[in-house]
Amino acid sequence: MKGTVLYAPHDVRFEDREAPKIIKPTDAIIRTSATCVCGSDLWPYRGISRINGPTPMGHEYCGIVEEVGSAVRTVKPGQFVIGSFFVSDNTCPNCRAGYQSSCVQKEVMSTAQAPLVRVPLADGTLVSTPDLPPDDLVPSLLTLSDVMGTGWFAAFAANVKPGMTVAVVGDGAVGLLGVLSAKQMGAERIIAMSRHAARQKLAREFGATDIVAERGDEAVTRIKDMTDGIGADAVLECVGTQESMMQAIRSTRPGGGVGYVGVPHDASLDVGALFWTHVRLHGGPAPVRQFLPDLIKLVWNRKIDPGKVFDLTLPLDQVAEGYRAMDERRAIKALLRP
Amino acid sequence: MKGTVLYAPHDVRFEDREAPKIIKPTDAIIRTSATCVCGSDLWPYRGISRINGPTPMGHEYCGIVEEVGSAVRTVKPGQFVIGSFFVSDNTCPNCRAGYQSSCVQKEVMSTAQAPLVRVPLADGTLVSTPDLPPDDLVPSLLTLSDVMGTGWFAAFAANVKPGMTVAVVGDGAVGLLGVLSAKQMGAERIIAMSRHAARQKLAREFGATDIVAERGDEAVTRIKDMTDGIGADAVLECVGTQESMMQAIRSTRPGGGVGYVGVPHDASLDVGALFWTHVRLHGGPAPVRQFLPDLIKLVWNRKIDPGKVFDLTLPLDQVAEGYRAMDERRAIKALLRP
Repeated sequence: MKGTVLYAPHDVRFEDREAPKIIKPTDAIIRTSATCVCGSDLWPYRGISRINGPTPMGHEYCGIVEEVGSAVRTVKPGQFVIGSFFVSDNTCPNCRAGYQSSCVQKEVMSTAQAPLVRVPLADGTLVSTPDLPPDDLVPSLLTLSDVMGTGWFAAFAANVKPGMTVAVVGDGAVGLLGVLSAKQMGAERIIAMSRHAARQKLAREFGATDIVAERGDEAVTRIKDMTDGIGADAVLECVGTQESMMQAIRSTRPGGGVGYVGVPHDASLDVGALFWTHVRLHGGPAPVRQFLPDLIKLVWNRKIDPGKVFDLTLPLDQVAEGYRAMDERRAIKALLRP
Repeated sequence: MKGTVLYAPHDVRFEDREAPKIIKPTDAIIRTSATCVCGSDLWPYRGISRINGPTPMGHEYCGIVEEVGSAVRTVKPGQFVIGSFFVSDNTCPNCRAGYQSSCVQKEVMSTAQAPLVRVPLADGTLVSTPDLPPDDLVPSLLTLSDVMGTGWFAAFAANVKPGMTVAVVGDGAVGLLGVLSAKQMGAERIIAMSRHAARQKLAREFGATDIVAERGDEAVTRIKDMTDGIGADAVLECVGTQESMMQAIRSTRPGGGVGYVGVPHDASLDVGALFWTHVRLHGGPAPVRQFLPDLIKLVWNRKIDPGKVFDLTLPLDQVAEGYRAMDERRAIKALLRP
């Protein structure tokens, strides 16, 4: 089997690797129907996060169950399944509270940009579709593995409710799907912050009513101007830098919520400044598993089409081009088909 | 009239000052029945917060309306009233959202350790009791002006619900009243963090079921041990230091809430660390005005007795001794009677 391995910044290879096998009785092996490149993959790709030697890549996946361990009960070979980028037992107190990405047995998936992938804790991690999906649904189903679930969690964590004014910081795939999520949750006004024409267009397709191209202080001023000087009811922070975090907090009305899902890089918050804003902060790695059943229904019934974030489709063996295109912002998100 | 003025660290004087007068038609003048020293008054008293020259002190007050401006409609001379330490119009969008301490017209009270005090925006700020209170209720009614409302907001912001396990960081008056608030909100287990016998005793009277004397890492370990390794459902942060904030966050289960009301001093948060905890953060200066009507009812009907936090009562002209006793932790909180 070949699989994706990052050797060094900007050096991604698709090369021979050992095919995954069942190691524990709770494992499953999935034949991936599709996988993709995540914005968070760009951190090590750009050398901002360090790697220790050649590192297999990929944490977003869906496909057909090939084999299951002897203890697996809820999925079986031949089913089409989607799993979260964090595996979870779905039975521990944190899972039962809906925070499967804080499962006491959690492990992060890291070998999914490959035709076969081993998924630990298969019963807790994987959710099957009602039937084998038509091929055109596969991209949208794939997004539920991480990017769509993460946009959804941003809106959930920001406490988006019907009628609200919502702002979204970040026009990557997560931010765009945050727009879609806010729309699904009934937001009345959705302000997408973007300066890229193609991303603005997709944001509008997903439900954005307004676009703000400014950043930093100017962006905060624009949001305040649009909300009678008070701020948005909910703001989704989908970047993970200090600047984007502060922009999100300062754009929110007192008592409003910031949902933050951008993996933070060297961001720190002055608690004194936060204190006087009265903003509610919630976020972290999305507990995608919590949302999978409902999101599968929405995709299956063609109520949402999150697969539109894939504006580049490549055969899996051209994965390196997928990284390049996203790094150079030529693509929002690259879909890879084995 | 005499009033309290801070001249320099540890130099509090009760000296002649001009009696307050109606300045705007929305003002009221209150003859204070009681006032007190706040934990936050100790920051400038200790020289940690700077003052620019002689500074009148005091933001907690209740008493009889002496005079009202021509535009005041909801309170009248002779009524007993309590007001928040922030004045608010109670009509702006932030007030309507329940965040009166972020009122667009907010001003902080600062001259209340005196027999007469001017309250701006009287209609929005003051709430009257059903009748003139018996004298023994005055201390508890006074706490509603700040300290009890702040403890209540800590529990509200941490999202305390019936049946929860709640931990309280800080054994000052706010923390102790946070215990009382969590109890009122139906918490099943309340862990007070304190190493002072008198404060532990009062915490137990207010509803604490457990006491943890450890601090920092050891305190976090103790809380985790008491909660099957997961953390408390809600934690009230009632100190305001970096250490106490991190202790609170690390003691909370994923998805649980930290309500923080200690005015922060040089505290910063690593967003990366916060991200992986899945903790919800909410807090700030308590919107006491939101809670005043309900809390007045609870005190009036003798359901709660927050006035127990006053373990020292002094005539107002001995205010300097009140500061000294609290600074030296000889008193939890000093009540001052004109």
